[in-house]
This record gives sequence, C-alpha cells and structure tokens, in this order.
Amino acid sequence: MPIKTISSAHNNDLKDLSRLLQNARDRRKSGLMVLEGIHLATASLEAGGELTALYINAEASAHPEIVQLVASVGERVAVSYITPGVFAKVTALTSAPELLALARRPVPERPAAHVSRLLLEDIQDPGNLGTILRSAAASGVNEVFLSKGCVDVYSPKVLRAGMGAHFVLNLHEAADLEAVLNDFNGSKLVTALDGAVSLYSQDLTGPVAFVFGNEGSGVSTALQALAPARIKIPMPGQAESLNVAMAATVCLFERVRQLEAQAG
Amino acid sequence: MPIKTISSAHNNDLKDLSRLLQNARDRRKSGLMVLEGIHLATASLEAGGELTALYINAEASAHPEIVQLVASVGERVAVSYITPGVFAKVTALTSAPELLALARRPVPERPAAHVSRLLLEDIQDPGNLGTILRSAAASGVNEVFLSKGCVDVYSPKVLRAGMGAHFVLNLHEAADLEAVLNDFNGSKLVTALDGAVSLYSQDLTGPVAFVFGNEGSGVSTALQALAPARIKIPMPGQAESLNVAMAATVCLFERVRQLEAQAG
Repeated sequence: MPIKTISSAHNNDLKDLSRLLQNARDRRKSGLMVLEGIHLATASLEAGGELTALYINAEASAHPEIVQLVASVGERVAVSYITPGVFAKVTALTSAPELLALARRPVPERPAAHVSRLLLEDIQDPGNLGTILRSAAASGVNEVFLSKGCVDVYSPKVLRAGMGAHFVLNLHEAADLEAVLNDFNGSKLVTALDGAVSLYSQDLTGPVAFVFGNEGSGVSTALQALAPARIKIPMPGQAESLNVAMAATVCLFERVRQLEAQAG
Repeated sequence: MPIKTISSAHNNDLKDLSRLLQNARDRRKSGLMVLEGIHLATASLEAGGELTALYINAEASAHPEIVQLVASVGERVAVSYITPGVFAKVTALTSAPELLALARRPVPERPAAHVSRLLLEDIQDPGNLGTILRSAAASGVNEVFLSKGCVDVYSPKVLRAGMGAHFVLNLHEAADLEAVLNDFNGSKLVTALDGAVSLYSQDLTGPVAFVFGNEGSGVSTALQALAPARIKIPMPGQAESLNVAMAATVCLFERVRQLEAQAG
C-alpha cells in the first residue's frame, strides 16, 4: 500500500480520527480504538493486536522506531504521513507527539468458570481504570469484566494510564456482572469500605473473583447480594480511605503474596 | 477582623495568591501553601493547621459549610470575599470553585530513631506523591521524609491528590535522606525493580523505613548502599511494572497485614 501524505485538516480520514479520539460512542460502534504514541502502538502489535491505520507526524517519519514500526506492519496497514501543522491540530486532543494508530478492539472469549477474574462496576475515572488494569496485568489476573457504566476502557486516557496493560489482558466490555459472578466457580470477594471481613482473613490461593465498584457509590446491592461477605482493607491510620485503584492494587497483590507463600 | 470584598484582579493580595498557586519557590520561601476548596481547608483546621487568609467566592458566601468555616476561624484569619468574575480569573489556575485558603506549612519535629517512616527520593509526579501520602496516612506510617529533589509536597496538585493526608502526616521537607537512614534504628527497605529479595520475605512487624526513588531512575546508589538488601514486589503477570505510588501502597499494606496477623 503506498504511503499517503495528508496536508489538510479537512481530510476525511483525519476527521474520523478526531471523532474517534473524542467520542466513546463512535469508538464503540466502529469497534476501534486510537493508540497514542509509539509505545502503545508497538505494545499492541507485539501482543498480536491488529492495527488498521497509522497516522505519523511527517517530522518524525525518520525516527528509527517509527521506520521499524512502518516496516513491521508491511502492506496490511494504511500508513499516512501528516504535515506537522495539521498533525498538531489533531493532537491538540492528545499528548502523542509522533503518531496515532487505529486498532481493532479485541473481543475475547469468555474464560472457563474457575479462572480468577476482576469485575469492575461503573468505574468512572480513566486514571483509576488504567491503574487497575496495570495492577491486574502485573499480578497475573488477566480476565477483566467491565459493566456498561464504566468509562470506555479503550478511551485514550485509559489506554495512557494502562501503559500497555490492555494488550495482555482479556477485557470483557459491557458485561452482565451479575451473570458473570453467578457463573463463577470460586471465591467471590466484594470490596466495601464498610466491609465486615478483613481481606487478610481470606484464602486467595484458589480461583478468586474480585468485585470493585463505582468511586462514589461502591458496589451495588444487587452484586453485593451475590457474594458471601463484604471485604474491607484494614486501615489503622487516620486517613479517610484509599481510592478504588489503590484498593484493587492491595487486593491483587495480597493474592500474589498468598500464591508465593503457597509455592514456598 | 472585618470581612473585605475584593473586586479587582489587580488587588495585591490576589496577586500574591496567584504567585503562590504557581510558584514552588515562593511557597517555600514564604512558608505557606494554598488550600483549594472547602474540604482541604476544613481538613487542615481539624488537624490543628493554621490558616492565615481565606479567599471566598462571593457567590458561595452563603453556603452553610462556608458560613461555618468563617465562624470557626473567628478573628484570627483575614477573610475576603472575591467577586465571581475576579475569582474565576484566579481560579483559572485551580479547580476550586468556592474558596482558596492560605495556610502555614508545618515544620514537624524529628521523630525518635525507632519510629517507622517513609523516605521519598526525588518523586516528580504530583499525582504519585499525593497517592503515596494517602497510602501512608491510611496505613499508619506518619513520618515522611522528602528529598530536596521531590516536587513541592505542598503544591496544589499534590494537596489535591493527597485528599487531606498532608494534615495527618509529619512531612519533613528537604531532608538529608542518607542521614535519616543512617540514624534510623530498624529495618531499612530500599525498593528496586531489580531487587533480589521479595517484599513478602521481610519481617515488617518492627520499626521499618521504606525508601522509594525517582520514577525514572529509582533509588540512588548512595541510598541503596545504606540498606542491607534491595526489595522487589513479585510480579507474576506480563505487565512491565507498577508505578512508584502503587508499589508504595503494596509495601505499606503488607506491613498492615503483618501487624494484623501479629495482633491475632
């Protein structure tokens, strides 16, 4: 495929790209996401992701990493160079200095009923969601189910905060969390600030489903009813609380610790 | 003290306020910080903090929480109402919709040599630093030493991310971390991605000093040399790493877990 050069902000491809950067509904409908910068684009490719288009700042086209990326995608991907002034207009919406890539949102298969998982209900803050994904990926819990009320998990901000975690996880969007929890065969842990049971009293060495709720309202009563007990993280200090991303990190790494201890 | 009304952005007090919002050096030199919003101002007062001035959006002056705040500071604090247009100009720098408060930066006394503590070397990201403070406060590690190279711990962004943690902690600024670690009488834990020893193999039930380093370069070799071993958090998953705030949260709550287990 020949490489195009785009020198007008009125170009239809760029208009589509801007819309996808800004609009979650358009991203969902098209089944696409926008990857900002060389790091995310490369991480996606390395994990077997499918790029559909590459928009490169013409000023950065000779950058060795970009040359390598263009060579590696070969004929399969439409590559365009964008003149710097026009690129700056598009990227006023982003922080990517050198390239934007369009990629398909993967649709993972449902895992077996005994595979550990994370259930996220109506998480609103992109930074929180990205951080949670990073902790999940680092701790080895790879199945993540997101309610319809979560912020778009493939939004540019969540992708940025996730630092590549998206591409090693199986992200199940618009999931029916009640059905997922009902079907799950293992320990069901719903976290709540007013939880009655300490996280540290739980055996996390078998299959675990962790449920985390909205930043303001926590886990819904409907989901709470499906778990045997509400779990809390003990906080001996004077501060009010941890945010949901920190709480998820503590829970996920308590599982890591227990698995390490078991492995001896 | 009578309540003033300020209706010009050229007012000298407002110019000083803007400068303190923007400029870390001015904040340090004056020994002041700017608290954005009713939540931080109230949290500071409740913890015994000393406000020196209150700037209130005139539109919000009848808000019950603000009326209460003004009553509670009594005659000790200069209170000014700012006309909405002028307030909007100042707060273009912040996200506070209703008030800004000036407060003195506390200068805490050095703790005894066996009190657990957190040492932070050249932490640059305000969100990371605020999150670390929140975890410290929630976990009950109240003595925090910050190297000169850290971002201003009393910057508006760090205060925002700290959500009030600043006011329950003892924050030791511009600390000589080598001296602090040398004088400390307990377990010295330096964290590093390439650390040789698992966090989970450490006894954290006695006095502990946790050392966390710069986001890019980690803990300096000079500080590493003062600790018996470099500690890592095991990461069985595929993701690159946790950021320093998540790593600190995991370490601080592993201490909580061990203390809980010991208490039985």
